[in-house]
Amino acid sequence: MVQLKVVFLGTSSSVPTKRRGLSSIAVKRGAEILLFDAGECVQRAMINAGLGLNRPMKIFITHLHGDHCVGLLGLLQSMSMAQRDKSLTIYGPRGLQGFIKSNIKALGFDLTFNLQMKNVRQKVVEEPEYTVYACRAEHPPFAYAYLLEEKPRPGVFYPEAAKSLGIPEGRLWSILQRGEAINFQGRLITPEQVTGPRRRGRKIGYSGDTRPSKKLIEFFKGCDLLIFDSTYADRHADKAKENQHSTAREAATLAKEAGVKTLVLTHFSARYDNIAELVKEASEVHGDVVAAEDLMELEVKYPE
Amino acid sequence: MVQLKVVFLGTSSSVPTKRRGLSSIAVKRGAEILLFDAGECVQRAMINAGLGLNRPMKIFITHLHGDHCVGLLGLLQSMSMAQRDKSLTIYGPRGLQGFIKSNIKALGFDLTFNLQMKNVRQKVVEEPEYTVYACRAEHPPFAYAYLLEEKPRPGVFYPEAAKSLGIPEGRLWSILQRGEAINFQGRLITPEQVTGPRRRGRKIGYSGDTRPSKKLIEFFKGCDLLIFDSTYADRHADKAKENQHSTAREAATLAKEAGVKTLVLTHFSARYDNIAELVKEASEVHGDVVAAEDLMELEVKYPE
Repeated sequence: MVQLKVVFLGTSSSVPTKRRGLSSIAVKRGAEILLFDAGECVQRAMINAGLGLNRPMKIFITHLHGDHCVGLLGLLQSMSMAQRDKSLTIYGPRGLQGFIKSNIKALGFDLTFNLQMKNVRQKVVEEPEYTVYACRAEHPPFAYAYLLEEKPRPGVFYPEAAKSLGIPEGRLWSILQRGEAINFQGRLITPEQVTGPRRRGRKIGYSGDTRPSKKLIEFFKGCDLLIFDSTYADRHADKAKENQHSTAREAATLAKEAGVKTLVLTHFSARYDNIAELVKEASEVHGDVVAAEDLMELEVKYPE
Repeated sequence: MVQLKVVFLGTSSSVPTKRRGLSSIAVKRGAEILLFDAGECVQRAMINAGLGLNRPMKIFITHLHGDHCVGLLGLLQSMSMAQRDKSLTIYGPRGLQGFIKSNIKALGFDLTFNLQMKNVRQKVVEEPEYTVYACRAEHPPFAYAYLLEEKPRPGVFYPEAAKSLGIPEGRLWSILQRGEAINFQGRLITPEQVTGPRRRGRKIGYSGDTRPSKKLIEFFKGCDLLIFDSTYADRHADKAKENQHSTAREAATLAKEAGVKTLVLTHFSARYDNIAELVKEASEVHGDVVAAEDLMELEVKYPE
């Protein structure tokens, strides 16, 4: 059982407001932080959220607009001021590496840790317990959406089945429970003999800035949580098209078509003092809609 | 009578804290804003302080460390999003122009206004009503301190003197009051005939990051308000030397030697939750000490 929590660090579109900072989302998975986008001031939001600067961490940038990546500069510098020693990898579109390198040089600071930067491909990261995938989004000049998918977990353990095979409770049960075979009195016992079918892990999607698209419906299929560009209300649907963003209703329509459980609206235009209008419009389409607020935390549970 | 107010937008050193943002100070002089430094998140602090993005404005950067200049990127972008149309000049050390230009290119945004960038010289700006001067500070690789000095105002107007010369109250008095000569019934009347001596304007100094120095004592001579690097308490005086900053006590000693009226401590190390210690140490040396807080406003009055 690994805890999976999403912390919204910035939920405003393009410009900050009194209440909302620029785009950034921290996914806390056990001890690790997966940071999606790093808008200006993300380091301060992390301080306010109690997220340390020396934790195991990966950073994923959707695109090179300032409100999604300028916060990297202060974050990297402050990590070094805090004597970070764990290596860090930043994944993003072409151009990101040059942006980071030239600014580290211009601002004249040294890193205290090993920094790797990688251009995004379809499969971005493969770890023993999860994979992060990328998909082209519809936002110029080019942008990515991301998907965090946990690998299947072992099935439910049946103590009666283990007992009937004569396996004593204890260490051997634990090995079988976590999905590994054992050798017991000269016999190979596979986990399938004492557990139910493997259970799927959790899926979190993040659109970054984008118009809705068929490709993204496919990409976000079956997400437990989808965080989607909801910049505009219906009455500004023309602006959503013009600026290559989505309305809250479009986000909900895509979430419904993708069979998403919970939809989180975010990246709100600063023109809306109150986003009740956007929540209402999205809720007319999808039954499980949440509006992101800065420093809001959402836990993503294992599916039933 | 022009109102002169200082708004502290960020008062932390190097890294932000829950309570303090990175270095930036807005001097509101009448309708104009003179912004000194632009640490990360300055645009949000300006929103919180109610400072608009389309006001007449000049920006002065002390040095190219990230915590003093990274906020320029978001600020310039948001000014364009807000359709700023007034031209803007940014003054700073060599290297600043390249930093700004390469980031505008990397982040792919267009400016809606005319942006000029100028390398700092000794006399930075000369306007009809004030001058801004720069002086090398002691902070590597190189940094500047700034001084805003208003030009002298006309002397006190003596109505009895004007009456005794037969000049009728009204438009002619106004011209003389603002220090210009008039032609009255074929005679030239100079303002000196009806006013006291010209009165000096106000002086505000800002050190940026620096060790104290003799040069800076000279530069800040007679300031009505001096905002000075006060990163450390006495017990970290070694760090002040090592990192080329000042202690609050050193700031106060310099202020006293320069005959400064009010000293404002700022740029506090994030290690101090409570800066009462720094205020106490500075107050042992100088009688008029104020500790800056984010969004604090100070009005600078004309000298008596």
